[in-house]
Amino acid sequence: MTISFRDIELAQIRTKNFIKNTPIISNETLNKKIGAQVFFKCDNLQETNSFKARGAFNALLAYKEKHGNFPEKVVAVSSGNHAQAVAFACKKFGIEALIYMAKITSPLKIAATKALGAQVVICERRADANKWSQEKISEGYFFIHPSANADVIAAQGTACLEALQEIGEVDAIFAPVGGGGLVGGAYLAASNLFSSVKVFGCEPLQANDAAISVRDGKIFGYENSPNTIADGARTLAVSPICFEYLKKLDGILEIAEEEILLWQKEFLDATKVLIEPTSALAIAGAAQYGEKNGGKFLVIISGGNVE
Amino acid sequence: MTISFRDIELAQIRTKNFIKNTPIISNETLNKKIGAQVFFKCDNLQETNSFKARGAFNALLAYKEKHGNFPEKVVAVSSGNHAQAVAFACKKFGIEALIYMAKITSPLKIAATKALGAQVVICERRADANKWSQEKISEGYFFIHPSANADVIAAQGTACLEALQEIGEVDAIFAPVGGGGLVGGAYLAASNLFSSVKVFGCEPLQANDAAISVRDGKIFGYENSPNTIADGARTLAVSPICFEYLKKLDGILEIAEEEILLWQKEFLDATKVLIEPTSALAIAGAAQYGEKNGGKFLVIISGGNVE
Repeated sequence: MTISFRDIELAQIRTKNFIKNTPIISNETLNKKIGAQVFFKCDNLQETNSFKARGAFNALLAYKEKHGNFPEKVVAVSSGNHAQAVAFACKKFGIEALIYMAKITSPLKIAATKALGAQVVICERRADANKWSQEKISEGYFFIHPSANADVIAAQGTACLEALQEIGEVDAIFAPVGGGGLVGGAYLAASNLFSSVKVFGCEPLQANDAAISVRDGKIFGYENSPNTIADGARTLAVSPICFEYLKKLDGILEIAEEEILLWQKEFLDATKVLIEPTSALAIAGAAQYGEKNGGKFLVIISGGNVE
Repeated sequence: MTISFRDIELAQIRTKNFIKNTPIISNETLNKKIGAQVFFKCDNLQETNSFKARGAFNALLAYKEKHGNFPEKVVAVSSGNHAQAVAFACKKFGIEALIYMAKITSPLKIAATKALGAQVVICERRADANKWSQEKISEGYFFIHPSANADVIAAQGTACLEALQEIGEVDAIFAPVGGGGLVGGAYLAASNLFSSVKVFGCEPLQANDAAISVRDGKIFGYENSPNTIADGARTLAVSPICFEYLKKLDGILEIAEEEILLWQKEFLDATKVLIEPTSALAIAGAAQYGEKNGGKFLVIISGGNVE
């Protein structure tokens, strides 16, 4: 399963009428604190308040291109944002959606998914949710994996593509790492457009499976959802297809919990925009890198689903 | 003192490198609650977090065009956002800034103005601030009125112009009314671009001097700052030049205090973006009008300076 830059361009065309070209904001106070000229790509203002809408729509639209019609029923597993995105896209196309989520999932995200008309099954552990969702494939469900899916990764890359189309070349790009789809897609988009741009994944120090995996050269996985405030990064392991991209990044920056909370608050204070902790990972990463290296940065704000 | 559409276009060109073309956002939940397709022009994400930066920069840049150099010292009076805008623009150009504010002004806005290097004088009443600031003109200060100034009004019109350049024609436009510069500029921009677009000013019912003025055909003024949560609308009276535009509007919508708070919260819940109460006036106005008339609306979010 290989993904090309053309797949991102096609995803952009395919999803154009269903997702938003989200705004990019900048803020002098944050520039000073981070030590760089920073552009924030606000996918917290995307449909269902996260970048995940990109992948959900592209997976369904690519299915339709291939099969002539949409799937009748869809199953997914999610730490919360992918769930809402799949539910929203399915509702738009009149498709039945079944979502498995772990008990640890944010109640806000569970409620929002139900409100979008999806059937939600809460499992004791994420591993059960993963297993049960895949078992549904044999019953005729179309399974949309949150990161181990080429159409999803290509679509997540459109967030970065859109931003670079608007602001031009940057020195470094920062995105959070959960399953790896967002930063994988960003790497694919950016490295094809500008050969010298650096791309960093940003992950909680308390859920640093991606950093461990890259260091060890093989995917490391948790048995249970790791304990971090950044709920979008509670995935058990990165997907194999994303791992290939993670290895090519300029680094995985590991962020302490207090840094996540600090940058969520700094962003709120400066812009009055409330983002979810997973989004703050990327800002914290930019600040960590910005301290020693100035320049022009792109930070992908992944979502805003928070109380 | 007449202002033409060309003055708005010139203001846009003049201020281009100093102010932001702020993002426009939309949100399905809010569309449903308002009963229309609503585009929010987010000048809460402007420099100094309000549209006032547009006017302050244009006034100074127009001065320089006319006189060959910037003024040495500037004086202004403000309910808070104009103060920060003038302080910010003066700092950028190395100009001394002196700002008079009434005691009732938001402590956040006073602190932000001081932090931008301006000298701040707090007066017992807004009327004193108005009087004292104008007395400084004889001492050689260049006075930038927050609304009774053609360069300021033309520049405030660029918020609407930018938005219409991006989203095209709309059915109705909603902007808050303080001194009347924002909605006056919006009217001038919109009516020149699209002959059938409706433009509404939105003002607190508890500070409805603009509505009274339009009803009576003459400017009504308060002796003391009216008591409303929408601090940007605590001006004593609209300016004469703006009154000419207010009379041409499709209406001044009067908003109860609880409606202001309700729509500030609805906007925050849906977008996670915190706006100041004055901005919520325009959303409340859109909802009041949207209840009976659907369509495509532009709502100008004036600022985000709030605790």
